[in-house]
Order: sequence, then C-alpha cells, then structure tokens
Amino acid sequence: MTYCLGILLPQGLVLASDSRSNAGVDQVVRVSKLSLMPPGKDRVIAIQSAGNLATTQAVVTTLHEAFGSPDAARDLARAKTMFEVAGIVGTQLRSTVVADGKFVDPYGDPTGSFLVSGQIGGEPHRLFQVYAAGNFVEASPRTPFLQIGETKYGKPILDRSLTPHCPLDEAAKLALLSFDATIRSNLSVGLPIDLMAYRADSFAATVITVEDDDPYWTELRRAYSTGLAALVESLPDPPAAWGV
Amino acid sequence: MTYCLGILLPQGLVLASDSRSNAGVDQVVRVSKLSLMPPGKDRVIAIQSAGNLATTQAVVTTLHEAFGSPDAARDLARAKTMFEVAGIVGTQLRSTVVADGKFVDPYGDPTGSFLVSGQIGGEPHRLFQVYAAGNFVEASPRTPFLQIGETKYGKPILDRSLTPHCPLDEAAKLALLSFDATIRSNLSVGLPIDLMAYRADSFAATVITVEDDDPYWTELRRAYSTGLAALVESLPDPPAAWGV
Repeated sequence: MTYCLGILLPQGLVLASDSRSNAGVDQVVRVSKLSLMPPGKDRVIAIQSAGNLATTQAVVTTLHEAFGSPDAARDLARAKTMFEVAGIVGTQLRSTVVADGKFVDPYGDPTGSFLVSGQIGGEPHRLFQVYAAGNFVEASPRTPFLQIGETKYGKPILDRSLTPHCPLDEAAKLALLSFDATIRSNLSVGLPIDLMAYRADSFAATVITVEDDDPYWTELRRAYSTGLAALVESLPDPPAAWGV
Repeated sequence: MTYCLGILLPQGLVLASDSRSNAGVDQVVRVSKLSLMPPGKDRVIAIQSAGNLATTQAVVTTLHEAFGSPDAARDLARAKTMFEVAGIVGTQLRSTVVADGKFVDPYGDPTGSFLVSGQIGGEPHRLFQVYAAGNFVEASPRTPFLQIGETKYGKPILDRSLTPHCPLDEAAKLALLSFDATIRSNLSVGLPIDLMAYRADSFAATVITVEDDDPYWTELRRAYSTGLAALVESLPDPPAAWGV
C-alpha cells in the first residue's frame, strides 16, 4: 500500500509520500514514490505515485528519459503549463496500461494513479491528481489537498486543521501528523517519508527524507500523542443521565 | 453508508451506530442500525447492521419475530451462548442472501454484515463481527473494538486512545469522537447516533439517541476541535534545516 499527499497553498506546495511497497507480507521493500524531474530555471515538476509499482515506475522512468529529449510528445521540459504536464502523465499511464495490462491482470491490478505538481514559469504553482483512467482533476483553494493510496486514516486531521491559507511550515507539520495516523492504523504504509516543500516562484525544491529515528519526527509524534491523551482526558464525561 | 462500532472492555460494552441510509444523494433516510432484542433476566443481545438495508432489516426482523417463538433454530431467547447467537445471525444472513441475492445483484450488493454483542447468563459479555459470508470473529482484550461500514476515518482516534482497560464512560467519549471524525470526513454517515453502554452482569441496557443538537455532543465536538487546534499549534515547527 501507499500514501501520498499533496497540499496546495498560496505560499506554495507541500508533498509527502511514504516508501513501503509490498506484494504480500514476506516481500516488503522500500521504494521512492516522490520523483522530482530535473529542475530548470523555469520549472519544478514533482510526480507522486500509487498503485502497481511496475506500472508507475514505467511511467515515471519513461518521462525522466524523455526529459529534454527529441520526444516532443513526452518531453516535460517543453510543456508550457502544468495542465499539459498532467495530460502527458495521464497519456503515458494509458500507454503503459494498454501495453502491459492484459499480461498483468491475472496477477493483480495493473493500474496506478499520480499526484502531479509544481510550477512552470508564467503561471502559478499547481497540483493535479491523475486517475487510473488517465484523466485528472486539479486542486484549488476549495480543495487544498489531494491524496492517493491509503487516504482515509490520514484525512480527519487534515479536514479539521488544514485551512486554505495555512503557512507552509504548519502544513508540513500537518502532513506528518496525517502520515502518523496512517502508519499507526495501516502496517502497509511505512517510513521513510519523502517530504518536499516548494515555495511559490522559487523554482527550487529539495526532498527531505524523514527516517524512523529522525529527531523532529520522533518528537512530533511523542508530543502529539501525549497532548492528545491529555486533551481526551480533559473532555467532559457523558452526562450522568446516560447511565454510562 | 454506515458506521457501527462495538467496544469490549472488562467493565462491559459500548456500542454506537449512525442512522443515515442512502441510495444516492436524493434518497437519504434515517434508520436505526442498532437493534436490541427483548431483554430478559438472563440475556441482553444487541445487533448492529451495515450493508444492504433490505437484507439487514430482513435478518433482524426475522430474528425479532422468532424471539421466544417455537422456531428453535432462530430463537435467540433459547441460545445458550453469545457464540450460538452469532452463529444464528450468520445463518439467517446466509438464508436471506441465498433467497434474495440473485434478484438484488443487478441493482447493487445484496450482502450485509453485523456486530453481535451482549451477555447470556453463565458467561461473560461478548462481542462478535459477522461477515457478509456469514462466518464471524470475536473481539478480545487484544482487539478491544470491532467496526463495520465506513471504518477508517474513525479508527486512528481509537488506535491511539482506547486501552483494553478503559472505563465505560471514557470509551463512550472515544466512541463519539470516532463518530465525529467519520461524520466530518464522510457525508454519508450521519446523526443521530444510537449509543448503548452495557455494564457487565447488569442484564439491563438502554439505547441513548444522540441528536445533532444534543448539548453533550455539541460541547464534546467543540472542546475537542478547539483543543486539537491548540495542540497542533503548540507542536514544534519543522527544523530550519528542512527549508520549509
């Protein structure tokens, strides 16, 4: 299983992906599900992947190899908008599934899905979700976050606390708390977490790898758990009339 | 959609069910998904339902009508153990699906699932989950809660805060917080919540209906939201080296 999260805010983007891939409990590996295209002066493009690992790796690797190449239809270095980038990712996903799907079907689901985000000079930073069908939707201030993979456990903390004008550092904190909830409830989502914060118009991005023993991650989880236990304890008990 | 939760603790049981049934957004009704069998001196039996409403109502109503009747195979008044009760519910579910399934299939999933809990004199209180297949599993101190329906949004708060020796009032509070998380993240789970706390060996139970304007529910949600926002705010920001 996988959990990938993308958050779109006026200040920029926060992206986070887990690293666990498993085909049964005895075959668990660590993979990277957040891929940054070669940065350029006028573009930062990130692709987060969920679903069949062979399919998503085929899509992402093909697009890496086509980057800056003569293959105009696949070259993300030439795309003029992030909308065009999302379209190219969706088309490449369709090609891969058409080519491999019928061979893979007997063993499992051949499809995948993506979060595609970043900024191309001349337009604001943007965030898209590419569905297994290759079509896609875009995040907006009304839907400031998109998720793929194991999305439900980590959604309540975002629904409650993420506001459309949240600063990037607060959003990064909430992203990690959303992963903490997911990892506690689903063993198939696991560390390290690849975390990327992109500040609008900076055209520079680095991916932070948060390992299990990372001091900030450890302290954040500890402080949240302790604080939540104290909060629950402090809440009023049910009325006596309920006879609980 | 539906969310039903059953919690098994040394002090007794806490059960909670939402009340929304929908077949598309334009056909939303309120139904009861927590059914208490007629109480007796030596037994309290509760059945919580999720899935196809016609199927689950057929199962529960059949068992109500057979209660104390000559129909020995279905009479929960004569069952000697809660294990036997869970088996009768599973068998009745199979009968209903065998009878109706092929007619219902073209319109949707004909199956359902149940939480079956309570106490019969001579043994402790118990909690079972009856699957769509009619087979079932039992809760234990190692798995103190079982869920059916829309289970994921409300699981993190329980995974974090519910301990195997939690008192009943604390468990009722956590059950409502688990529903709050679910209702915020999924519109198809809705109030009122039917809440029942059963104290072990009391052989008496009442179902509390928690409406949207219930003062305790309102205050609990408000205090939790405010407290959580303050907690998140108080947590350390990501290290400066991360460049967020």
